[in-house]
Amino acid sequence: MNASGPLAGIRVVDLTAMISGPVATMMLADQGADVIKVEPPAGDLVRQMGSSRGGMSATFLSSNRSKRSMVLDLKTQLGMEALLRLVRSADVFVQNFRPGVAERMGIGEPAMRQQREDLIYVSISGFGETGPYAHKRVYDPVIQALSGLAAIQADRDSGRPRMVRTIVPDKVTALAAAQAITAALFARERTGQGQHLKLAMLDAIVAFLWPEGMTGHTFVGNEVEAARAQLAQDLIFATTDGWITVGAVSDTEWSGLCRVLERPQWEQDPRFRTAQDRVANVAERLALTAEVLATRSSSQWLQALDAAGVPCAPVLSRAQVLTHEQILANDLLAEYVHPQAGRIRQPRPAARFGATPADIRGPAPALGADTATLLAELGFDEQEVQQLMGGQRA
Amino acid sequence: MNASGPLAGIRVVDLTAMISGPVATMMLADQGADVIKVEPPAGDLVRQMGSSRGGMSATFLSSNRSKRSMVLDLKTQLGMEALLRLVRSADVFVQNFRPGVAERMGIGEPAMRQQREDLIYVSISGFGETGPYAHKRVYDPVIQALSGLAAIQADRDSGRPRMVRTIVPDKVTALAAAQAITAALFARERTGQGQHLKLAMLDAIVAFLWPEGMTGHTFVGNEVEAARAQLAQDLIFATTDGWITVGAVSDTEWSGLCRVLERPQWEQDPRFRTAQDRVANVAERLALTAEVLATRSSSQWLQALDAAGVPCAPVLSRAQVLTHEQILANDLLAEYVHPQAGRIRQPRPAARFGATPADIRGPAPALGADTATLLAELGFDEQEVQQLMGGQRA
Repeated sequence: MNASGPLAGIRVVDLTAMISGPVATMMLADQGADVIKVEPPAGDLVRQMGSSRGGMSATFLSSNRSKRSMVLDLKTQLGMEALLRLVRSADVFVQNFRPGVAERMGIGEPAMRQQREDLIYVSISGFGETGPYAHKRVYDPVIQALSGLAAIQADRDSGRPRMVRTIVPDKVTALAAAQAITAALFARERTGQGQHLKLAMLDAIVAFLWPEGMTGHTFVGNEVEAARAQLAQDLIFATTDGWITVGAVSDTEWSGLCRVLERPQWEQDPRFRTAQDRVANVAERLALTAEVLATRSSSQWLQALDAAGVPCAPVLSRAQVLTHEQILANDLLAEYVHPQAGRIRQPRPAARFGATPADIRGPAPALGADTATLLAELGFDEQEVQQLMGGQRA
Repeated sequence: MNASGPLAGIRVVDLTAMISGPVATMMLADQGADVIKVEPPAGDLVRQMGSSRGGMSATFLSSNRSKRSMVLDLKTQLGMEALLRLVRSADVFVQNFRPGVAERMGIGEPAMRQQREDLIYVSISGFGETGPYAHKRVYDPVIQALSGLAAIQADRDSGRPRMVRTIVPDKVTALAAAQAITAALFARERTGQGQHLKLAMLDAIVAFLWPEGMTGHTFVGNEVEAARAQLAQDLIFATTDGWITVGAVSDTEWSGLCRVLERPQWEQDPRFRTAQDRVANVAERLALTAEVLATRSSSQWLQALDAAGVPCAPVLSRAQVLTHEQILANDLLAEYVHPQAGRIRQPRPAARFGATPADIRGPAPALGADTATLLAELGFDEQEVQQLMGGQRA
C-alpha cells in the first residue's frame, strides 16, 4: 500500500466503528493516509452486518478498504501500551464512542495528547457531548427524525413523515469529518499545532439540510412550514416501459417540452406562460405532463427531449447504474479480487487529483490482518507479541 | 472578516454558481479562507430563486455567507485583466461551468495556471467531462435518477421510484469538493505543487450511496436488486398526537420495547426471539409495534422507552427542530442581522475546531459589494475602476 495521494505520509489511528467514522477514514486512506483500524478482539460490528461472502460483509468492504487492521485488547495493560506506542507515531486519532466512553477507557483527548503533543484528536458523536440526548445510543433513523429530514421527506398527500432510505446522516457526517480532519492537518502544517476536533451527527445533518431544506425558517419573523419552501419536486414520470425524469425550468426548456409532447397550445396557456406561472400551477402542469409521457416508451421520449434541449434522464435501477453509458465513460466502477470475498465491485474515489491521485489502495482487511507486522514495527519482542496476539493467528 | 479558522491565509477565487460549488466554498470560507465570489453583472441565479427578503434569497444566504462578492464582466478586456490579477493572488480557483465552457471563456486550467503556477484549479461538473451526458444541463433530479438514489427511495408497495426531497447530490458534491480542495491544499503545503482537481456530481453521489445502498451489487456474480439489501427501514410510527421513531436492534433493546409496550409474550414469540428472527419477520414486527404505539401520546411513549434504554425520538417538524432541547444544548443555531435581509437564522459550521475555530464570518454579500475594494487592492486606477464598475455603485 505505497501511497501517492494528497495525504501520503499521514498516519491515522482509527478507533471508530459502524459507518460515520469508518467512511470518513476510508476517504483519507484512499487519499494516501496510512489508516490503522484498531479493533477489539470481536471486531467492528459491521463485519457481521448485512450480506456477506467469504466472511466479509459488503458494507464493511465499502467502508474500510485501503486500511490496515490491528486487533488490540485495551482492557489489558500490554494492549494499552501498544496503543500508546502507536499513537506516538500518529498524526490523527479518531473515535466515535458515545461521549464519556473514551475517557473511561483511558483514551480521552488529554491522555492521547500526552503521547503526541501535536495530535489531531477527533471525537464524532451522535447528538453532541452534552445535553439530554448525549447519553443515548444513536441510530441513523433517530437523527433523520430529530433533524427535520423525515419531515422534509413527508408524503405530500397524507403529511406522514418518511425516512430517506439511505443513511444520509451517517454518510454526511463521514464527509464532514473527513473535510474537517483534512483542514486541521492543513492548519497543523502551518502552525505546528494539533487540536481537538468535535463533530456531532445531528449538527452535521442540520447544517447539510439548511441551504434549501430550511429556507422557510431562515428569515426570523417570517417562518413558514409549508413544503413549498423547497426547490425539490418529485419529477418522476411513468412511460409505457419504465420511468423517466424530465425538468423544464427556463422558457426555452418549457417550449422544447411542449413541442416534444405535441402540446404547442400549452406555451400560450396563461397557467404556464412564465417560470413563475409554471411554479404557481405546478400540480396541474405535472399532471398534464404525466398524462402525455405515459403514452410512449422511455427511449422514444428521452431521445426527443434530449434533441430539444430538455433536461431528462432514465430513472435507473441499481443494476442499470452499473452499465449506464455515462458511468462507463467516467470509468467510475472498479473491480478487484478480495482475498476472502472474491471479486468485488466498488466506485473509485469520486474526486480526481491531477498530481496526487487518490485510489483504492487495497482491500478491506480481515480482522487483525496487520497486527503482527505493526507490533513488530512498534518494537515489541516475540514474547510480547505472542501475549498481545492471544488467540489470534500471527 | 478577520479569519482564525484552519484555512486562514488561503484565498479562493470562486466562479461557481447554484449550489454544489457555492456550498463547498462556503465551508472553506467559514473555516477562514478568503473566498471571493466572482459574479457576472447579472449575478448568481440563486440570488433570484425561492423565498427572499430585502432582495436576498434564503438559499443564497445559506450558500454564500462568509464570502465577498466581486462583479466582473469577463467579456470585456479589462474585466478579464482584473480576473487574471486576482488569480495571481489566489491559492484556489473553482468553477462549475459545463465542460468546455471555461475554456471557451478563456479561463480554463492552463490559462489560469499561467497566472499562478502552484494554483489548485477545481472543475466541478454534473456528469463528468466526457461521455454522452457531459454536454447536458444538470439538475439535481437528473442525478438522483441516474445514480440509483431514486431507485433506493422507491415505494415499498408499488415499486414506483421516488425522489429524495432535499438536493442530496448537489450538497454531497459540495462536501466532497470541500474535502478534496482541502486535501490538495495540504499536499501543496508539503510539495509546493498545485494541481487540477475534477469532480463530477454523478461520481460523488454513486460513491456516497455505495457503502450500504449498493451492497446488492458489491459481490460480482452474486448481484441482488432486492430492497432488502438495505439497512434502512422506515421506522416511523403514529401516536395519538404525532409521530415517533423507535428502533430495537439488540436483544436488550427488544426486551425493553416488549416491556414498555406491555407485550411480554413477544419476547418468547418464535418470530422475534433472535435479532435474525426479528429481521426475517420485520413486516409483522413493525405492524404489531405500530398497533400498540398508536394508542398513547408521543411523550408518554418516549419517556417510557428512554427509561427502558430503547432508542427513540420524536419526528420533528422543521419548526420544532429550532427549539428542540438537544439543538439548544449544542448551541447549533445562530441569529444575526443581515444588512439587506434583516434578522436571519442559520446553523454554525458543524465541525468544532478546538484551536482554530470555524464560524460564520459575515453575511452573504450583496451583488458586487466588494468590487471597488478589491479592484483598488489589485492596483486599478480610478478611471479603470469606473470603467470596470460600469453601472454598479462604487
